[in-house]
Amino acid sequence: MDAKTQKSELTRATIVGAAMELAAAQGLEAISLQAVADRVGLSKSGVFSRIGSREALQKAVVDEYGHRFLADVFVPAMQLPRGLPRLNEIMRRWSLRVCQVEVRSGCIFTAGAFELHDREGELRDHLVQAISGWRAALRRTVQQAITLGQLRADTDAEQLVGELYGLVIGLLHDARFMRDPRAIERTQTSWTRLVASYQA
Amino acid sequence: MDAKTQKSELTRATIVGAAMELAAAQGLEAISLQAVADRVGLSKSGVFSRIGSREALQKAVVDEYGHRFLADVFVPAMQLPRGLPRLNEIMRRWSLRVCQVEVRSGCIFTAGAFELHDREGELRDHLVQAISGWRAALRRTVQQAITLGQLRADTDAEQLVGELYGLVIGLLHDARFMRDPRAIERTQTSWTRLVASYQA
Repeated sequence: MDAKTQKSELTRATIVGAAMELAAAQGLEAISLQAVADRVGLSKSGVFSRIGSREALQKAVVDEYGHRFLADVFVPAMQLPRGLPRLNEIMRRWSLRVCQVEVRSGCIFTAGAFELHDREGELRDHLVQAISGWRAALRRTVQQAITLGQLRADTDAEQLVGELYGLVIGLLHDARFMRDPRAIERTQTSWTRLVASYQA
Repeated sequence: MDAKTQKSELTRATIVGAAMELAAAQGLEAISLQAVADRVGLSKSGVFSRIGSREALQKAVVDEYGHRFLADVFVPAMQLPRGLPRLNEIMRRWSLRVCQVEVRSGCIFTAGAFELHDREGELRDHLVQAISGWRAALRRTVQQAITLGQLRADTDAEQLVGELYGLVIGLLHDARFMRDPRAIERTQTSWTRLVASYQA
């Protein structure tokens, strides 16, 4: 990468980072080229020439959020033995991340899902695809745990992933919105019960 | 109620209804006196004289949503025998409501929770209070089921309510955002498993 390409990559990262802060505070629909230009000290056309349309910028935020999320939650869990140890570590890291208010980007997938609920369009489709990708990774991990005999052979992987997802979204609701300090402990208890119910 | 009071009540209901539609489509923060005035064909000051500030209108939407929700979900369930029959009926009605896309106000509590996540202020406090009231009603119903011996005596009511809430929010996510037609069936399966685990 030559110096010019490097500088342009840096600017791109700065723009996407600023847009992500905006989205974390006010939602994906709050992203506009002008608002982001103001934050990074560029002109609106300067932002456009580096990123493209508002929609391209919104999608770039979803992608960058996905990268950060996987780096925090999924990649470290992959260091553990396959199956249940990985699944437990994913749950532990994800729950902690959800409760860390300083990770202001920590809710862009779920907050975005509720924000874009009944709307149509490329941004919605892009977010659905990103969340589907993450759920497929969860399903593979559950499937490994079944194959390794750590969960009962008749375990419905889709069902368990749906339950796991509900626990985390419920935690996001209770810990971040209701600000209930016991929410994370309850979630851990529920997860332990849930796994046990697929082992008995 | 004389004719004048009646007319003013009607106008108030129209204003709150229009604000609720706005909130269902774009979020509670999308409510403004001007936007609602445009929808109902009044002047901005006409809306203000009937409702008060933007914040009072937002709170009125939360209250009206709460009334409709209770009338749809809680009140009919109270016709059934105490405890588990009521709890099952609440879960059934609530799940159906969550999946009905025509009930566009069906997500104001939860969408609002994700929208107002990290913010401060009276609207947030008002919504937290409304959700807390609903959870207290759920807790009482669980407590009755324990007292009546329908659930094990060592059942943690708070824990079970948290799990029930997570199932419904997960359903809202999967059915409304991911548009997964099997989500409601999965939720019903999870609920049946969950209740059984508190009975064994």
